[in-house]
Amino acid sequence: MSTNPTHTRRYVLAARPATTTGPLEDGVLRFEDDAPVAALHDGQVLVKVGWLSLDVATRGWMNDVRNYLPPAPLGEAMRALGAGVVTDSQHPGFTAGDRVSGLLGWQEDAVVDGSALRKIPDGVPPQAALHVLGISGQTAWFGLHDIGRPHAGETVVVTAAAGAVGSIAVQLAVAAGARVIGVAGTAGKCAQVRELGAADCVNYREQDVEATIAELAPDRVDVVFDNVGGAILDALLPQLAVNARVVLCGAVSRYAGSGPVPLRNWFHLLPNRVRMEGFIYLDHQDRFDVAEADLLPRVRRGELRCQEHVIDGLKAAPDGIRLLLTGTNNGKVLVKLDQD
Amino acid sequence: MSTNPTHTRRYVLAARPATTTGPLEDGVLRFEDDAPVAALHDGQVLVKVGWLSLDVATRGWMNDVRNYLPPAPLGEAMRALGAGVVTDSQHPGFTAGDRVSGLLGWQEDAVVDGSALRKIPDGVPPQAALHVLGISGQTAWFGLHDIGRPHAGETVVVTAAAGAVGSIAVQLAVAAGARVIGVAGTAGKCAQVRELGAADCVNYREQDVEATIAELAPDRVDVVFDNVGGAILDALLPQLAVNARVVLCGAVSRYAGSGPVPLRNWFHLLPNRVRMEGFIYLDHQDRFDVAEADLLPRVRRGELRCQEHVIDGLKAAPDGIRLLLTGTNNGKVLVKLDQD
Repeated sequence: MSTNPTHTRRYVLAARPATTTGPLEDGVLRFEDDAPVAALHDGQVLVKVGWLSLDVATRGWMNDVRNYLPPAPLGEAMRALGAGVVTDSQHPGFTAGDRVSGLLGWQEDAVVDGSALRKIPDGVPPQAALHVLGISGQTAWFGLHDIGRPHAGETVVVTAAAGAVGSIAVQLAVAAGARVIGVAGTAGKCAQVRELGAADCVNYREQDVEATIAELAPDRVDVVFDNVGGAILDALLPQLAVNARVVLCGAVSRYAGSGPVPLRNWFHLLPNRVRMEGFIYLDHQDRFDVAEADLLPRVRRGELRCQEHVIDGLKAAPDGIRLLLTGTNNGKVLVKLDQD
Repeated sequence: MSTNPTHTRRYVLAARPATTTGPLEDGVLRFEDDAPVAALHDGQVLVKVGWLSLDVATRGWMNDVRNYLPPAPLGEAMRALGAGVVTDSQHPGFTAGDRVSGLLGWQEDAVVDGSALRKIPDGVPPQAALHVLGISGQTAWFGLHDIGRPHAGETVVVTAAAGAVGSIAVQLAVAAGARVIGVAGTAGKCAQVRELGAADCVNYREQDVEATIAELAPDRVDVVFDNVGGAILDALLPQLAVNARVVLCGAVSRYAGSGPVPLRNWFHLLPNRVRMEGFIYLDHQDRFDVAEADLLPRVRRGELRCQEHVIDGLKAAPDGIRLLLTGTNNGKVLVKLDQD
C-alpha cells in the first residue's frame, strides 16, 4: 500500500515569453496548487524536492529557440536542477531515503527516471549538489581546466566573480597558482571576491573596466573566465596577452537587457592569437566523476565555498529569476522548498 | 674586386600614417633613386630582388602600434617579403646564383643576414615562394590544418576566397574532402573560386551572406576560415554548427574602412561551443618544413594554384597596397621588379 502523495504543488511553464531576452513577464509561469502526481513506472523514482537551482540558463529554456537543450516543454513543471530525498523507487539503484540530485523541476514531488539521477555524496549539505558539486562547480571546473588552462603565475580575470560559477572559478584559479582579478557589480561583492583569494576586484559599476584592468595587470591577462559577455567582455579583449584564452561560460548580459551588446574589440583576438571558446558543462557529462573527484575533497575540507542566495518556498521561485536577470542576486540562487 | 652595386632604388617608410586604419596617404612612403648599398659583413648576403609580396599586414606594419611584429622602422626600406637571386655572399650557406626568399624589403638590392633567408625549391617559379609556398600557402596550411581542422564531409566557408590566402585555403579544404563555400566580392571572383573546387560562392556585394549561407548549408557550417572580419564574419556566426571552429586569419575589414565593424552575433559562440582562434603564421616557423613537404608536391603537380595580381616595377608598389585596402585586387598582389 503506497503512501505516495497523489497531488503536489508546482510551477508550470504556461506560455513562451514574448521576447527571447528581457525580464520575466507575468503569465509565463503558472502556479498550480493541486497538480496530479503520476504513479511510478518501472525504472522511475519519486523524489521529495528540497532545493532547486535557479540559473541564467533557466530564462533561455523558456524560449522556443534552439539551444544546448530543447526548449522547456509547455504545460509541464518548469525545468530546473534540484536536490531531494527519494520517497519511493521502482529503480534498483535507489531506495527511500537516498539523497539525490537531477532535473527535478519546479515542483514539490517529482517522478523521474532513476537513470537521470545522481546520488549526493556523504558529508556535504544537499544543496552543495547544486553549486560546488553541481552545475556551478562542474561548469567552473571544466571551463577553467579544459578551456582556460591557467598556469601558475598567470593572470586570470573572472567576470561575475561573486556569482555561483564565478566564485568557484576564482577559488579554483587561485588553487591553480594563478593571480586572480575579479569583476563584480558592488563593493560588497568585490569584498567577497577578495576573501575568496582574488588579488583584486574591479567594481564595473564604479570603475572603468578596461583602464583598471590595464593598471592591475600591466603584463596583460592570460585567461578570461567570462560569465557576462557584452560590454564587460569587450573591455577585457584589448588587455589580452599573446596566446590568451577566453572561456565563454555565460552571457547574462544577453538575457538581461534589450539584447546582446556587440563586441567592438574582437579584432584584438587576431594579433594576440587568442582562443575564445564557448562551452556547455553538459558536454562533459562523461567526465563529471573526474571533476567531482577533485572538487569533493576540497568541499569537505571547506576550501571551496559558495555564497548562497536562498529564496524561501517554491511560490517565490520567479523572484529568483528576476534577481538573476538584474544581477541583484548575491551568490548562487537556490529555492529552499517549504517541506518538512 | 667586387662588382656589387653601390646604390639602389627603394621606398623608405618616411612617416607614420595619421591613422592606424584607412587609406595609404601620400608622404608615408618616399621613393629614393640613389640610396646607398652597404658593404657585406660576415654572415650577410646581397640579393637582387625580383619579386615583392604585398599583404594587408603591410598596412599594419606602417603604424607605430604593437602587433605580432614590431612596427616597420622609419627611414629604412619598407618591410616586405621578397624573392630574388643571390649576387654576393659572406654566408657559408649561400653562393651567387642561389634563388632565395625572405624579408628583403621594398628595394632592388637587399643586404640581409643569410640566417633570415630560405632557398626557393627547384621546379617552381620564384614568386611561388611568396604565395603557394610562402606566406599565403603557409598561412592557409597552418590556419586550416592546425586551427580549423576540417574533417571529410564537413562544410567549410572561406571568406576573401579569391584572395591569396583564401584561394589556397579553398584548394586545401577541398583536398581534405570538405564541402567548401567561398565568399567573394564580384561574380568574376566567385567564378574563379568555383574553378578551384568550391561547391559554391556567395557574392557578398549582391547577396545577403547570412540568408544565402543558411540556404547553401542547411546543416550549418563546421569551419569558417576568415580573412575579413567585421560584417561578413558577423553574418556567418549564426550559421555555425555545434563545435564549429572559426579561424581568424585576417581582418582586412579593419584596415580598409573607418575602423572595425563590431560583432553583434558573438553570443552564438556559446550555445554552439564554438572555438574562435586567432593565429599568426610566423608562430609556426619551426614547422614550415612540415607544411612545405605537403605543399611542394601539390604545387609541382599543378594542383595548388594562386591567381597573381602583378604590379609592374618597384615605383608602382604603393598602388598594390591601395588595391588590397579596397579589395579591388584579383589574387595575390606581387610587385615584379624591373630588373634584368
